Amino acid sequence: MIDLIRKKRDGGALSNAEIAYIVDAYTAGNIPDYQVAAWLMAVVLRGMTREELAALTHAMLHSGEVLDLSFLPAKKVDKHSTGGVGDKTSLVLAPLVAAGGLYVPMISGRGLGHTGGTLDKLESIPGFRVGLSVPEFHRVLKACGTAMIGQTEKIAPADRKLYALRDVTGTVESPNLICASIMSKKLAEGTDALVLDVKTGSGAFMKKEEDAVFLAELMVETGERMGKQMAALITNMDQPLGRMVGNAMEVQECIDVLHGGGPADLRELCLHLAAWMFYLGGATKTVAEGKQRSHEIIASGKAFDRFRQMVELQGGDVSVIDDPSRLPSADHRIDVRASAAGYVAEILCEQVGTACVILGGGRERKEDSVDPAVGIVIHKKIGDKAGENEPLCTIHCHSDAQGARARKLLEESYKISAAPPRHKPSLIHRVIYKEEH
Amino acid sequence: MIDLIRKKRDGGALSNAEIAYIVDAYTAGNIPDYQVAAWLMAVVLRGMTREELAALTHAMLHSGEVLDLSFLPAKKVDKHSTGGVGDKTSLVLAPLVAAGGLYVPMISGRGLGHTGGTLDKLESIPGFRVGLSVPEFHRVLKACGTAMIGQTEKIAPADRKLYALRDVTGTVESPNLICASIMSKKLAEGTDALVLDVKTGSGAFMKKEEDAVFLAELMVETGERMGKQMAALITNMDQPLGRMVGNAMEVQECIDVLHGGGPADLRELCLHLAAWMFYLGGATKTVAEGKQRSHEIIASGKAFDRFRQMVELQGGDVSVIDDPSRLPSADHRIDVRASAAGYVAEILCEQVGTACVILGGGRERKEDSVDPAVGIVIHKKIGDKAGENEPLCTIHCHSDAQGARARKLLEESYKISAAPPRHKPSLIHRVIYKEEH
Repeated sequence: MIDLIRKKRDGGALSNAEIAYIVDAYTAGNIPDYQVAAWLMAVVLRGMTREELAALTHAMLHSGEVLDLSFLPAKKVDKHSTGGVGDKTSLVLAPLVAAGGLYVPMISGRGLGHTGGTLDKLESIPGFRVGLSVPEFHRVLKACGTAMIGQTEKIAPADRKLYALRDVTGTVESPNLICASIMSKKLAEGTDALVLDVKTGSGAFMKKEEDAVFLAELMVETGERMGKQMAALITNMDQPLGRMVGNAMEVQECIDVLHGGGPADLRELCLHLAAWMFYLGGATKTVAEGKQRSHEIIASGKAFDRFRQMVELQGGDVSVIDDPSRLPSADHRIDVRASAAGYVAEILCEQVGTACVILGGGRERKEDSVDPAVGIVIHKKIGDKAGENEPLCTIHCHSDAQGARARKLLEESYKISAAPPRHKPSLIHRVIYKEEH
Repeated sequence: MIDLIRKKRDGGALSNAEIAYIVDAYTAGNIPDYQVAAWLMAVVLRGMTREELAALTHAMLHSGEVLDLSFLPAKKVDKHSTGGVGDKTSLVLAPLVAAGGLYVPMISGRGLGHTGGTLDKLESIPGFRVGLSVPEFHRVLKACGTAMIGQTEKIAPADRKLYALRDVTGTVESPNLICASIMSKKLAEGTDALVLDVKTGSGAFMKKEEDAVFLAELMVETGERMGKQMAALITNMDQPLGRMVGNAMEVQECIDVLHGGGPADLRELCLHLAAWMFYLGGATKTVAEGKQRSHEIIASGKAFDRFRQMVELQGGDVSVIDDPSRLPSADHRIDVRASAAGYVAEILCEQVGTACVILGGGRERKEDSVDPAVGIVIHKKIGDKAGENEPLCTIHCHSDAQGARARKLLEESYKISAAPPRHKPSLIHRVIYKEEH
């Protein structure tokens, strides 16, 4: 191991066998943490070749169970987002694409820090079980074309162990290590195609677009090296997506989209991502055709029906889906108002996510539980005009005292200017895909 | 700690307090190995400012006992060598400089890998005790002006713990970490001045002169920042120093030098280093005067007398000093001969050191014990003419079988050419000192 650390320290590239040795031996407990910590730091500062990255991802993927979904009669396709605020597209995409004839085996995560997580949103539906066994997952997937579960202990154990070490050794912020972590988990789903939604902006992990593009390119190439159809959309996270931030409130907004409504930006992004999922899954000849198909499926009501069916199959209370006013809710309202008339020039989006965490709607630490009822309704987004004292957003919580800190954060996060901002952020910055489309 | 790791990872400089925190908390067992390993790798790849280095050295030095020798009535001065093959000057310098009126409190190390160690050499004198207590050390020092001991458990415990971790995490090869390790131990001696003998060449740790110069400059500046008189000589280690390699054989060669004889290169280097010790210790006005003084002291027999006295005070059998033929010796001789007539163009010096280790005269691992009797006599050095079949060097060992592997290594280490080499290595490449001298 010392020789491998030194090789990477001196800028060399490790062989596939050397990388497999590190991952396997560390997972088995045969290399101490301190040696892997030194190697991880050398990787952070020296980088990796694309081949090393593919070898690392492969070794991490095969450290655990890889689902075999070859029994399904059509292509499997999934979407992964690097995380943001109000980022709820999975709940729309899974039933929408399943209704279009592809299979969407979705293994999702929980919220951590300022970003929300799909599992937490789903669990705001009473009775919904994200902890299905593999046979149950297969059954739901076969029956309704999609199933949404959490990562099991058996998937990519190497990633769990490496991530825990990275978390305490300052080695999280490495595009290579982030890529290997994401891809090793996502590829364990046994999917044929994967669309990446790589967020950039004030509410994303990658604040700078160039960093988002770099990570996206790494992930696309790594997936392609492993035989998957890959594309990445670089999308804006300078403000929350849609108008709802908070678990049950986001489920409600997704139901709106599945009914053909919902806020324009969320609807648009869902249609775009679904279009790419259809295209990469071979269901349509072009991305444009995929978008048209997505429109039609939503308009037909089939996407909503599929969502309802999945909720039912996963133990959720469908009466709540039929009547979203029955979702958990917090009765107390606190308006955050504009101190002066003007235009919303900027939203410190990460702070909006943090405000939701403070309300109890997210996690500061992995062990925390979340309150499904609380959240924030965004009334004004970038470029919107606001009169003096007009509400910019509204906090849903249980008391004034509980909402006080979140209110302060939200007040600070809105920047109002006298003139309208010259640029409104575009929703989709660019697409990373190997060929013309 | 995570924040400090990230700061260094991103190329920042830690404050004195931050560095002291890492060293103190790690030594106390309050930071885990894996975090320090990640930080060490970040230091290797990002470097340190001179201020950070001084803070690290200071914190490591003060992690343990710092000797207070202020009761001594003259300046204290020491020499440190970065290690080489046949590098035995300490045994000459300590009594020589002590005989000139300065105090030489010398804390030395053991051999490791291809390099020998002063303690192993001294222990080839029957009865010699390198493990004196601090009061004994004071007593010997006061009585004869010098004492030579090993590092105690109480000196720089932070270095011991950090070095053990560096050894297994590929973080040994860092000029900053090497400097802090050396200087924290050397400054614990309570010396006023320190002359560094930084070796470069095929038998040194630093094969390239620029690396040796860089390390020397770091050490000189770090010592000066801590109020010490400092100078560094960059000296050649492309071939063994002197003609003897092996513990008892090297003691014998030192006794020759103390009697005014010995090989020219060893004698010359001892005179130079002693000259700088006298000069930095304020005993002479110039280095040249220091050299003259060294000559005179050796010629007067006072240097030898002082050595004999120190050996006696540290429990050694002085009859062996008076009659070096009584030193441990190995009777079996194996000559390594020139395969063709020509000139010695090159000696793979590290391999000569390794040959001695293989004979049992050095250590592959810290736990190994050494055989004081074995060794190698170098007959031909770079530029020397050798006839076909003429001995290049002679192995002293216990049997043909024992010497077989060493013989092969030594045969390979001599490069003979038809023409004499254009350059013979100069002994002293340059001096690093803050002002003109």
